[in-house]
Amino acid sequence: MSRKKLLSAFIEEVWSQGRVEACDDYIAESYAIRHDPGDPWDGQTLSREGFKERVRLSRAPCPDQRFTQTSILEDGGSVVIAWTWAALHTGDIAGFAATGARLTMSGLTLYDFDDEDRITGHWQVVDRLSVFQQLTQNAAKSV
Amino acid sequence: MSRKKLLSAFIEEVWSQGRVEACDDYIAESYAIRHDPGDPWDGQTLSREGFKERVRLSRAPCPDQRFTQTSILEDGGSVVIAWTWAALHTGDIAGFAATGARLTMSGLTLYDFDDEDRITGHWQVVDRLSVFQQLTQNAAKSV
Repeated sequence: MSRKKLLSAFIEEVWSQGRVEACDDYIAESYAIRHDPGDPWDGQTLSREGFKERVRLSRAPCPDQRFTQTSILEDGGSVVIAWTWAALHTGDIAGFAATGARLTMSGLTLYDFDDEDRITGHWQVVDRLSVFQQLTQNAAKSV
Repeated sequence: MSRKKLLSAFIEEVWSQGRVEACDDYIAESYAIRHDPGDPWDGQTLSREGFKERVRLSRAPCPDQRFTQTSILEDGGSVVIAWTWAALHTGDIAGFAATGARLTMSGLTLYDFDDEDRITGHWQVVDRLSVFQQLTQNAAKSV
């Protein structure tokens, strides 16, 4: 399977569907969050089990979240995806209580692979300002 | 010249050095800002002259800005760059008066090209939340 197809399957199974055990198929034993400003794990290197915990904790406030891939590029051992995201806000996010509102955001993520086609880390930027604006607007409405 | 090299030269000459006239060499007659949440031109399609005006207005509050490319990937006619940015805040940004402070941010940008290797548009996400936090912190210090 090409790295593009592997990455698409990983995003769908692990991040969209929440099948955390599938990380065993996709994630290297060590995973580096090289750059991800605003992410609680930014700069950390995680074990595979640590990565699974990150997925569980990240998905908890938005368990129905879905990622939609808009572009994917592969070059020199790395793959970049451009994506949009949508989810219902059903748990606490950064101190904002659940409102049930639909949230949307977007980002681009560059993934690195090892020689066995396992993912070893990422460099990512997410549009967190839009999410912050949606959270503050929804919180104001629900007061 | 490869599209990667063209794009690196474009970022350096036009966005870092502010040589707006060089857009004639790099930009197609029509340029689509396909996705750029928080950017004043998000969703617009610009003429080449309109694109030059966008560069002038965007660079005005931070004329010494410099982009540093951390990764570049080319695939299927598109090129993605991952980048960091630094500048001194010497003019108004979104209602925040100049403080002279050094600002930093990062992002990833996917560029599309036409058959003549001119850039026809982009799909981008920038870490605007970090910039917003730096602007509010610097404004509070300067009161």
